[in-house]
Amino acid sequence: MTDNNTKNSVQSIAVIGQGYVGLPLSLLFLSKGFTVYGIDKDLGKIRALCQTKSYLPDVTDEELSQSMGTGRFHPTDEMSCITRVDAIIICVPTPLNSEHSPDLTILERAVADISQYLQKGQLVILESSTYPGTTREVVKPALEQGSGLVAGTDFHIGYSPERIDPGNEEFTVEQISKVISGLTPQCLEQARELYGKVFENVVNVSSPEVAEFTKLLENAYRLINISFINELATICDEMNIDIWEVIEAAKTKPFGFTPYYPGPGIGGHCIPVDPLYLQWKVQKAGLTSRFIEIADEVNRKAPHYIADRIQALLVQHKAPEQANLLLYGVAYKRDINDMRESPALDLISLLVQSGHHVSYHDPYIEEIEVGGQTYKSVELHEEVLRNTHCAIIVTDHTVIPIDKIVTFAPIVFDTRNVTDKLEHRGNIYRLGAGNGNLARQERFA
Amino acid sequence: MTDNNTKNSVQSIAVIGQGYVGLPLSLLFLSKGFTVYGIDKDLGKIRALCQTKSYLPDVTDEELSQSMGTGRFHPTDEMSCITRVDAIIICVPTPLNSEHSPDLTILERAVADISQYLQKGQLVILESSTYPGTTREVVKPALEQGSGLVAGTDFHIGYSPERIDPGNEEFTVEQISKVISGLTPQCLEQARELYGKVFENVVNVSSPEVAEFTKLLENAYRLINISFINELATICDEMNIDIWEVIEAAKTKPFGFTPYYPGPGIGGHCIPVDPLYLQWKVQKAGLTSRFIEIADEVNRKAPHYIADRIQALLVQHKAPEQANLLLYGVAYKRDINDMRESPALDLISLLVQSGHHVSYHDPYIEEIEVGGQTYKSVELHEEVLRNTHCAIIVTDHTVIPIDKIVTFAPIVFDTRNVTDKLEHRGNIYRLGAGNGNLARQERFA
Repeated sequence: MTDNNTKNSVQSIAVIGQGYVGLPLSLLFLSKGFTVYGIDKDLGKIRALCQTKSYLPDVTDEELSQSMGTGRFHPTDEMSCITRVDAIIICVPTPLNSEHSPDLTILERAVADISQYLQKGQLVILESSTYPGTTREVVKPALEQGSGLVAGTDFHIGYSPERIDPGNEEFTVEQISKVISGLTPQCLEQARELYGKVFENVVNVSSPEVAEFTKLLENAYRLINISFINELATICDEMNIDIWEVIEAAKTKPFGFTPYYPGPGIGGHCIPVDPLYLQWKVQKAGLTSRFIEIADEVNRKAPHYIADRIQALLVQHKAPEQANLLLYGVAYKRDINDMRESPALDLISLLVQSGHHVSYHDPYIEEIEVGGQTYKSVELHEEVLRNTHCAIIVTDHTVIPIDKIVTFAPIVFDTRNVTDKLEHRGNIYRLGAGNGNLARQERFA
Repeated sequence: MTDNNTKNSVQSIAVIGQGYVGLPLSLLFLSKGFTVYGIDKDLGKIRALCQTKSYLPDVTDEELSQSMGTGRFHPTDEMSCITRVDAIIICVPTPLNSEHSPDLTILERAVADISQYLQKGQLVILESSTYPGTTREVVKPALEQGSGLVAGTDFHIGYSPERIDPGNEEFTVEQISKVISGLTPQCLEQARELYGKVFENVVNVSSPEVAEFTKLLENAYRLINISFINELATICDEMNIDIWEVIEAAKTKPFGFTPYYPGPGIGGHCIPVDPLYLQWKVQKAGLTSRFIEIADEVNRKAPHYIADRIQALLVQHKAPEQANLLLYGVAYKRDINDMRESPALDLISLLVQSGHHVSYHDPYIEEIEVGGQTYKSVELHEEVLRNTHCAIIVTDHTVIPIDKIVTFAPIVFDTRNVTDKLEHRGNIYRLGAGNGNLARQERFA
């Protein structure tokens, strides 16, 4: 800890979790002159950081070199380091368990570890997305119990939802307004002092519950809107109306409409997950969000719909029963190397279950495991494409060689509308663009 | 008809329907030098136009005076006038019937009337919001049958969705991009010539179905998002979290989130209606939109929820069983005089059914009829407010005297969050701001 711990003196922090949230946050604090202990149990990450090898597309090796060069960045797996800091920021994953309910195991373990080293006067901020009440009902008692200290008196607790958007080049981390909250007014004041030093705009809310809910509202909004447009895509397939053309036209309205686009299903650590944290808490209160329920269902069905369409196309084109299928992209979104909750995983499972031979190419993901089997990204050679019965565009990475795929693959199924100007070349099928009756006849056969 | 009817010569039009869509459109065409026959079966409207008395808040008497002063504006109930024009634009209501299905009676009657006078070379454009296929499957055959002419050859047909937003002062009609379509490429070309002369930006789409779908997507998006936030408002009431504070915090995110706000339910001619046109057509295809289904249900329940909350508040405050209730606002949204599909109507019915005495004040609506009974807007005197057991803020007209209402009404229930800075004054309850357990206990008692 620095020599005193009054609210204006915070100069050193520990960031628990050095993933896609914790690492950029660590670098931001470093850039503002802080000493940062970057703590992660994954020794692979710690080694990579020490060797200035980035594992995130949004962080370059140069940035890591600069950060390590300051002499103020200390990547480590040693939780005891937190005795030396003024504030501890928790950025650990909050995934779902197999019942699609909140799995706070990682958070609970982190908090228990922190509590063993917690010092008087420290500030603890949770940034992980979670249900309203987590900070007060889970983090606070665990920290108090482990440390013997009293929250709000001996130490301070706040919640501030991370808003990192991997791949977003429009806004830097510090430009994204930071919502903050505290268990008490003094906790809030401490959080404000800390974050005010690094973020351009800090937004106070009245309680951790409001701050927790804020993040879930943001992502529930996205899940619902993307799922709705995915529902409409399947409807447009049947009605032979091009949903992509409809969206382009609708977005010319200068107010009251925000475009969302169909795809193979929503992946990632946030949008399909966070709304279920909210739903879980709502159901604990004896209620339910029917919108979240439907959105989750529609999203889970999306890869099934794609698999059905592909199956019907293969039949239509008289492909062999065990066809060669090639996925372009397995990352859950463009230009990132993250495949958590990626719909590509379900899609591969479904296609393999139907007896097909599945391979993939992703410029950012070398190897994946699906259903106990390991797949390695294949090179997109002309020959590979020629030997494929159907190429399936799952992720629209900026570097996608559309022309090459369309030229050499006998059939292309495009879930991202990257081929909309090429349909005259034949054998290209776009999700939500009509001609869906094939899939439907198949499904109802 | 003007002396020739080649595509560049359109100088006179007829606008069928002089309501909130047809009248502003007529005035726009007039302002660009066109001769306009404003046709409506409602003689009250025709008389008002001839006397330059506006019946729309967005149109001033001065504007009408100027328009009539041009000598080119001819309000009339005479459909035969259309023999003199180059293009006919249909702006008639497309409401729902009692089964919540499309009611095209008014449109069908208008089209049958038009067909009796249709001339070779004329262009007919439908602007009414309707399900995909209406232009091709309903309007085209009816026009051909009545006229003996052939669409696409003898005359032209297009569809261009109206995007009028009553009360919107940010965009003039001509600034709102105009989506257009035609039955044939030549139909589209004619529509483009006509609308290109009056709108700043004209957007071609490939078919009437795409243009029809566009409007329905725009409003389904709004229905779903407002209904979702209304669902969350009822959840926040139970969880004692202020949804309004959550929304304010969420909207500080500079990307990926668009705020929608709770209210007493969505009214008006468009948002609650259009999505059911889409749903009807989707169901004809053997499918359904579960999002639209839920959104419609949640929206219909909204006034019931408000009525439950008020009932619980009355019990809590020991009001008499037959309480005096006063609604501020019955218009479906701010600063307009339109009460079509307004949730105030359902709310009044429910409160009267519970045995209460209901009155209302609305600066823009003098008189309404609910359940066979006529209500006249009362003056908002101090005495009236004092004699009310609960004032219910339903519409947040800009001129609302919040301070007066809060000062003199014993209880205020605010569905629009106009009292959020005044809660310290006591006896103010906001929808979605917590304290909902009362209503719930009541409902489950």
